[in-house]
Amino acid sequence: MNREALIEMLNQLKRDEITLDEALARLSSMPFEDLGFARVDHHRALRHGGAEVVFCQGKTPAQVVAIIDALISRGANPFATRASEDHYHAVRAKFPDLVYYSAARVIGPAELSDADRGEGLVLVISAGTADLPVAEEALLTARAMGSRAEAIHDVGVAGIHRLLAEVGRIQQARALIVVAGMEGALPSVVGGLAGRPVIAVPTSVGYGASFGGLAALLGMLNSCASNVTVVNIDNGFGAGYAASMINRLPPLQ
Amino acid sequence: MNREALIEMLNQLKRDEITLDEALARLSSMPFEDLGFARVDHHRALRHGGAEVVFCQGKTPAQVVAIIDALISRGANPFATRASEDHYHAVRAKFPDLVYYSAARVIGPAELSDADRGEGLVLVISAGTADLPVAEEALLTARAMGSRAEAIHDVGVAGIHRLLAEVGRIQQARALIVVAGMEGALPSVVGGLAGRPVIAVPTSVGYGASFGGLAALLGMLNSCASNVTVVNIDNGFGAGYAASMINRLPPLQ
Amino acid sequence: MNREALIEMLNQLKRDEITLDEALARLSSMPFEDLGFARVDHHRALRHGGAEVVFCQGKTPAQVVAIIDALISRGANPFATRASEDHYHAVRAKFPDLVYYSAARVIGPAELSDADRGEGLVLVISAGTADLPVAEEALLTARAMGSRAEAIHDVGVAGIHRLLAEVGRIQQARALIVVAGMEGALPSVVGGLAGRPVIAVPTSVGYGASFGGLAALLGMLNSCASNVTVVNIDNGFGAGYAASMINRLPPLQ
Amino acid sequence: MNREALIEMLNQLKRDEITLDEALARLSSMPFEDLGFARVDHHRALRHGGAEVVFCQGKTPAQVVAIIDALISRGANPFATRASEDHYHAVRAKFPDLVYYSAARVIGPAELSDADRGEGLVLVISAGTADLPVAEEALLTARAMGSRAEAIHDVGVAGIHRLLAEVGRIQQARALIVVAGMEGALPSVVGGLAGRPVIAVPTSVGYGASFGGLAALLGMLNSCASNVTVVNIDNGFGAGYAASMINRLPPLQ
Amino acid sequence: MNREALIEMLNQLKRDEITLDEALARLSSMPFEDLGFARVDHHRALRHGGAEVVFCQGKTPAQVVAIIDALISRGANPFATRASEDHYHAVRAKFPDLVYYSAARVIGPAELSDADRGEGLVLVISAGTADLPVAEEALLTARAMGSRAEAIHDVGVAGIHRLLAEVGRIQQARALIVVAGMEGALPSVVGGLAGRPVIAVPTSVGYGASFGGLAALLGMLNSCASNVTVVNIDNGFGAGYAASMINRLPPLQ
Amino acid sequence: MNREALIEMLNQLKRDEITLDEALARLSSMPFEDLGFARVDHHRALRHGGAEVVFCQGKTPAQVVAIIDALISRGANPFATRASEDHYHAVRAKFPDLVYYSAARVIGPAELSDADRGEGLVLVISAGTADLPVAEEALLTARAMGSRAEAIHDVGVAGIHRLLAEVGRIQQARALIVVAGMEGALPSVVGGLAGRPVIAVPTSVGYGASFGGLAALLGMLNSCASNVTVVNIDNGFGAGYAASMINRLPPLQ
Amino acid sequence: MNREALIEMLNQLKRDEITLDEALARLSSMPFEDLGFARVDHHRALRHGGAEVVFCQGKTPAQVVAIIDALISRGANPFATRASEDHYHAVRAKFPDLVYYSAARVIGPAELSDADRGEGLVLVISAGTADLPVAEEALLTARAMGSRAEAIHDVGVAGIHRLLAEVGRIQQARALIVVAGMEGALPSVVGGLAGRPVIAVPTSVGYGASFGGLAALLGMLNSCASNVTVVNIDNGFGAGYAASMINRLPPLQ
Amino acid sequence: MNREALIEMLNQLKRDEITLDEALARLSSMPFEDLGFARVDHHRALRHGGAEVVFCQGKTPAQVVAIIDALISRGANPFATRASEDHYHAVRAKFPDLVYYSAARVIGPAELSDADRGEGLVLVISAGTADLPVAEEALLTARAMGSRAEAIHDVGVAGIHRLLAEVGRIQQARALIVVAGMEGALPSVVGGLAGRPVIAVPTSVGYGASFGGLAALLGMLNSCASNVTVVNIDNGFGAGYAASMINRLPPLQ
Repeated sequence: MNREALIEMLNQLKRDEITLDEALARLSSMPFEDLGFARVDHHRALRHGGAEVVFCQGKTPAQVVAIIDALISRGANPFATRASEDHYHAVRAKFPDLVYYSAARVIGPAELSDADRGEGLVLVISAGTADLPVAEEALLTARAMGSRAEAIHDVGVAGIHRLLAEVGRIQQARALIVVAGMEGALPSVVGGLAGRPVIAVPTSVGYGASFGGLAALLGMLNSCASNVTVVNIDNGFGAGYAASMINRLPPLQ
Repeated sequence: MNREALIEMLNQLKRDEITLDEALARLSSMPFEDLGFARVDHHRALRHGGAEVVFCQGKTPAQVVAIIDALISRGANPFATRASEDHYHAVRAKFPDLVYYSAARVIGPAELSDADRGEGLVLVISAGTADLPVAEEALLTARAMGSRAEAIHDVGVAGIHRLLAEVGRIQQARALIVVAGMEGALPSVVGGLAGRPVIAVPTSVGYGASFGGLAALLGMLNSCASNVTVVNIDNGFGAGYAASMINRLPPLQ
Repeated sequence: MNREALIEMLNQLKRDEITLDEALARLSSMPFEDLGFARVDHHRALRHGGAEVVFCQGKTPAQVVAIIDALISRGANPFATRASEDHYHAVRAKFPDLVYYSAARVIGPAELSDADRGEGLVLVISAGTADLPVAEEALLTARAMGSRAEAIHDVGVAGIHRLLAEVGRIQQARALIVVAGMEGALPSVVGGLAGRPVIAVPTSVGYGASFGGLAALLGMLNSCASNVTVVNIDNGFGAGYAASMINRLPPLQ
Repeated sequence: MNREALIEMLNQLKRDEITLDEALARLSSMPFEDLGFARVDHHRALRHGGAEVVFCQGKTPAQVVAIIDALISRGANPFATRASEDHYHAVRAKFPDLVYYSAARVIGPAELSDADRGEGLVLVISAGTADLPVAEEALLTARAMGSRAEAIHDVGVAGIHRLLAEVGRIQQARALIVVAGMEGALPSVVGGLAGRPVIAVPTSVGYGASFGGLAALLGMLNSCASNVTVVNIDNGFGAGYAASMINRLPPLQ
Repeated sequence: MNREALIEMLNQLKRDEITLDEALARLSSMPFEDLGFARVDHHRALRHGGAEVVFCQGKTPAQVVAIIDALISRGANPFATRASEDHYHAVRAKFPDLVYYSAARVIGPAELSDADRGEGLVLVISAGTADLPVAEEALLTARAMGSRAEAIHDVGVAGIHRLLAEVGRIQQARALIVVAGMEGALPSVVGGLAGRPVIAVPTSVGYGASFGGLAALLGMLNSCASNVTVVNIDNGFGAGYAASMINRLPPLQ
Repeated sequence: MNREALIEMLNQLKRDEITLDEALARLSSMPFEDLGFARVDHHRALRHGGAEVVFCQGKTPAQVVAIIDALISRGANPFATRASEDHYHAVRAKFPDLVYYSAARVIGPAELSDADRGEGLVLVISAGTADLPVAEEALLTARAMGSRAEAIHDVGVAGIHRLLAEVGRIQQARALIVVAGMEGALPSVVGGLAGRPVIAVPTSVGYGASFGGLAALLGMLNSCASNVTVVNIDNGFGAGYAASMINRLPPLQ
Repeated sequence: MNREALIEMLNQLKRDEITLDEALARLSSMPFEDLGFARVDHHRALRHGGAEVVFCQGKTPAQVVAIIDALISRGANPFATRASEDHYHAVRAKFPDLVYYSAARVIGPAELSDADRGEGLVLVISAGTADLPVAEEALLTARAMGSRAEAIHDVGVAGIHRLLAEVGRIQQARALIVVAGMEGALPSVVGGLAGRPVIAVPTSVGYGASFGGLAALLGMLNSCASNVTVVNIDNGFGAGYAASMINRLPPLQ
Repeated sequence: MNREALIEMLNQLKRDEITLDEALARLSSMPFEDLGFARVDHHRALRHGGAEVVFCQGKTPAQVVAIIDALISRGANPFATRASEDHYHAVRAKFPDLVYYSAARVIGPAELSDADRGEGLVLVISAGTADLPVAEEALLTARAMGSRAEAIHDVGVAGIHRLLAEVGRIQQARALIVVAGMEGALPSVVGGLAGRPVIAVPTSVGYGASFGGLAALLGMLNSCASNVTVVNIDNGFGAGYAASMINRLPPLQ
């Protein structure tokens, strides 16, 4: 709609050649921020199970407290990732009900420790104990977004029988997150066992030529299992967010 | 050893036709697929909408024909990717009904050109005309796997208004595939507009410091949109497969 | 040896006050700066709006004070980048009028906080709050070089509507600086909206596979917008300097 | 402006409580595609000196002819880069007036060979004879965009006196393009000599550890001259486009 | 100077046929191989089962024929790797008994196709059909070096049950070679199943971000199985050589 | 389900105490380790000479003590790598017999300092004094796994005569470990002198362009000696483990 | 303008045959080489033994012939590197005396095959037969620059005794060039044996993880021998040039 | 076994005091250094001007004192690089005459500050003040090795006139060292001005995409000046050592 057409339309409206509804319909495909993005944000809150995310890294404890305060005052559930102990000490002084999940470096409501809440099933599988922080961040994120989420830890590919013993749970999950450092091989194996989308998270765990997670990242991108997609190194939050979004996808109509 | 053979063996044991030691010996070498993994393969065929994938690159035309022959003889729908014109000429001689989708380098049934078949909606968005082959491979893969799939081409971020004009379709899709080379920025923008999972496909399109798609790959992995996950460079098939799997996820119970 | 000295020497030769050998000797060791390069330095001071730059990183507070002292004593305006709080404490003791712009890590005159001074318009756009230090360094540098400069912060591509709301200012700027880490996609979008030169600054902000800004750098180099050029990672000073030079380019004659 | 405010405003217009101009003004900050992007495109054509760019690489000769045909039929001047001899032969058959600049791999109007046309001065400097194709592409692009453009070739830093002999022209240019492969050192030297913006173009020329232009690219990004910005490897077009945009920047008011 | 010549010289010294100074002079320039290193070469021939290796890549067919001729004339068994069809045609003309193993690109004696010859057991496991050429080179090399060698092909980790069905053979092998491209995960899984040394061979097979085998190489170096060591990308010969050396290690005394 | 439980269940089936369906159900969920993988673990303990490995890095002293306590209580010999002094102080308080090998950062039994224990011969050769920690870790690992192991230190290739003086011991070893940083050249030289498998360990020792061991790693992977295989950077444990496994390989039958 | 012309002009000024303005004008546009840099070029010719270098790669045969023609017509000896057979055929037609050194891809005078010409001694050592082209280019370059030069080929570090047999010649050389691909270990060993400067040339020879010579390059840069410096991958010409310059350094006074 | 012992043994053989077999046995285990390599070490001391090098990094102050003590007790001049203040404090307590050159991080005799000692001329040129530590290490190393050595600092290529003012000294030097970080362009310019060997030292000075000196390193390796060779990043010692070796090369005979 160019300027001339716009003027013409407004004149038509003034002259009652078109109705107000017609004018509205034409204009409804216009400024995105005014007409529709707010709905997206509204949906986002629902989809998150009411949780709003605070990324703490690089923020002072006081800043984190202020943001959480603002969220709570407008009724949102705060969910803070990459939170240090210092962040938590400052938060706890004002909001004693919030819990620090230290392995995941997450601050959030107490109910996130409840494995039975939420709908569907997001399964988080990690290769070694050193991958635990990233895996726990993914787990709690999935729960904060409204999914039921469980974890299987320490099932690296060099002891493949430990993984195979969990085939039952693997095949029940609606979305899977596989967290691994070093060679990053676990997502391919899980991808072959599962018939659902697998989100692979490379971690920076490793020695020597792991090059800060690059080895695992490249391994996962080259996975021979076609249901595997990949997020950034150590990005447990992103994996939990995307897996929960998949898990809670509304049914086909 | 399939289920029937297992039942037969257990019956033999009950009838004392074999000893306990013989039963143990057979069980200890029991191929794992016989116990349940084969069901995965069965499910896979259903999930694929009956299509079986043939990766043609590195195979001779004769080999491709032989594989397709075998698939058709057991009732499967062949879907061949990375197929050259030579592959197609050999295939057409024996199976004149199969169609060559040259932009996507795919050989498959004629109905894949029908945008109205399939369920749900997978939306494939590509940045430039050079990304078309990868985008088309993703589109046809999603259709072959049973999804309804549409494409929006040539909406790179340097002309953002072209993309914004498609916000309506973007918000209707259940899973999105975003294909881009060069700076790989498109998935972040789409991820911000869409409330559904976005699978990003970096392409090797680009000049100079694109380094064969590395620039786009890194850009996508570092996306600031949390609903974006990434597959390998030029891997349109993998993106179509995973997006269709998400799109067709059964409803929560 | 400037032009006058050269003329004088040639006259001396004509007048036989010096020998041919003496003339040859002087010419053969003639310092190049005497012939014209010194003018460049003179121009540089004018072009900078009188500001002289001090790069503080790796210098002791005492050294920084000494350099600023020397600059002020010859009438120049000091402008110190990458300055720590320690640098500033030492500087303030002697020059209490100088201000510390902590977000930008810059020490400079108070008038740099005035968005209305200077000519033309350099617009600095940054993607996330973590890109702020680099963006502010660019902003203050542009002002110190004599440009009017404004900033738009936190308009990353995953929330594209925030950026689109600023199209008016984007189209008024004579030169633009776009600062972004992570996927580095913002310059391409801005490049498409603006009809003026865009200088992209990748930042080292990011996680995992951002590899210290490499992802953003490659993304920007591969921008599909032809009016985008790139400076080094985190080089806010260089971007501000070049953008101001463009903004203040004398008119065509 | 939300839906209610929009309805209210349209009603005010109908009731003559606001004028049509007021309504237009309010709406003018609305849908970008409808109200303003066309103007951008219009401006773009003017700014280009009437030339429209066709990127030939990856396109068939027939496609290139069709695009040029379309451009000419709506009055635009075609300017085709990365054109092969095959592209040109197809184009010449239909448009015998178009010229093939083989060194630059460009198809364009004959007047691009005229060094005196255009306004201002863009100076293209290249280090070695092997950098010539990229330098010529930059030169012709700048001319096609309406700038006067000249070139200085073969003035690599290992013979610095050849460059110094051109200091006069270097200091007259309004924007400079420096094209170099191998160690990529030339932009730093030129940046120190020139008081105007320098756009550096790394080329893939080099042996061994040049790694396809990476050595030159990194060198240029790390330039110690603050007026140097960088474009992608071998991207002569981008450099010519950006330099011409700088050169032709309208005067400050 | 071999041992006999040394003895002769010392005898000459004793008999005063040469002076002490002459003896010293000869000793001071004494080639090192004459004192003992030659024994290494002698041992090498035995250890190889009589085979001598010819690396054909970069050699003309005529050169390869000449080298094989020389080897046969001194009683050695030629074993030529990276041989093209052209190499073989030239060789066959003179030595019709030699066989071309085209999958492995090897020229050697016919008995290398016999899986029952040789001692011990080297087991070669490969992930995909595209890894076959490297796996076959490793297999034939192990046989040529005197080992019994078998292969298991196409047991990639995304279909882990196929590999598990071979646990029996895996646990019988004395040394294992695992050949894989793409994510390079297979060696870790095999390493966990086998109680013997595993030599991993990354291949350049893969798409996009496999970067010519780098992804697989890094994956293998970061294997979490401690019995895995790695050779160069596509180096099937080296793996076969080292595995056979391990397999045939003489018993502890 | 262990072997006994399996036998019991089959007997119950024979005795009709359970139905065939019950037997099938139990078998279908049968944990894989119960069928035979546990034997692998049993063998592993034997093969290690009774030692069980604890990787200390990233674990607290208390965690390390707890793990060692558990190992000792079930009769295993603890062998702890990457142990800090803090780890050792905590361990010593409870287990005063355990020794801290500070150069190797290993905690283990006192007899590991005995070069005469164990069977066969693993020879550890290191290039410079800075490679010592990795070399010592390899040495002690080999001993803990039951091998006799000796070390030759500081025989870098720039002083080749020092290495040549040790040719006798090099030719006696059954497996060799070569540890080197910087250019990583030593394994090739040793590989040419030895007729046995050589495991190369790149170290992160080096300056500038060693890039954390990458230079040494690439050098070793490209070794022209065919008996060289490589482990990860600084992975002394892995090299000692694999070399001991080779050294103690049971005799061919 | 050479020295004589400068003296003449100054004399003309003294004699009033030209005006001061004319003198100034000539001086102000005086090419820098005329003041002294030309002496460098003059020296260069002497230093080169009269040879002038033509780099053929990327030039047409006709261009190469034209350049050689120009060189010969002003009395210089042409020395053309990276010359193909096509280049030589064109050159031979006009200059039948020039010889093609095919291994080195060099066109030059016949006397370059004479190992006894020239002064001092540059020794070129190469690791494998595949390094020969680079080594020969270095050898012929050193001779063309006036040095006596000899070569030792095929003395890779995996057969160290072959190198040690040449210690005598190694210790006689005044400058050494060591050419190696793969692991690039040879310069360190030679550096330890020689008491003179060693110039290392990495070659792109290698497989898999040699990454086009990067492995050798990094190895050489990290050499533990302090008398080793490095040139670019495959840069035999540069090594020969620099080694000859060292070899022929005038004596200390 | 030194020369005297060898003569004695041969005499014993002549006198029949030992048997031929005994002589053979002793010769076969003859340490290589005894036959001639020790002379190299002797020569090395002479060549160094009596200085012996201690690399302090990674050594404790006590270790450094002990090594210096040993050197002094056998008459050598200690020269310690990469020395911290702590190292020096420990050394000074025992050897108060030794001086700490803090910029270069070197401990050595006081006369190293004397620019007039030594023979010939090694000229050290550095680009920026941040390159000073590496440049000073090179300067002092060259002096310690017996060369006269001078330095020119802060002559980066962006201010080329400062460098050109030093052309006189550049052309007097017998060997040059050029130290530069950032883009590493200086060696090419110096290489073009000098007629002598230039050793380039990349430094890790730089920001963003300098990647720890990689940008400078690649730039220098790709230098278009043929007399430039390169050492490792920050390796001032190696450059000083090699340049002094070139400078002091004995005259041709």
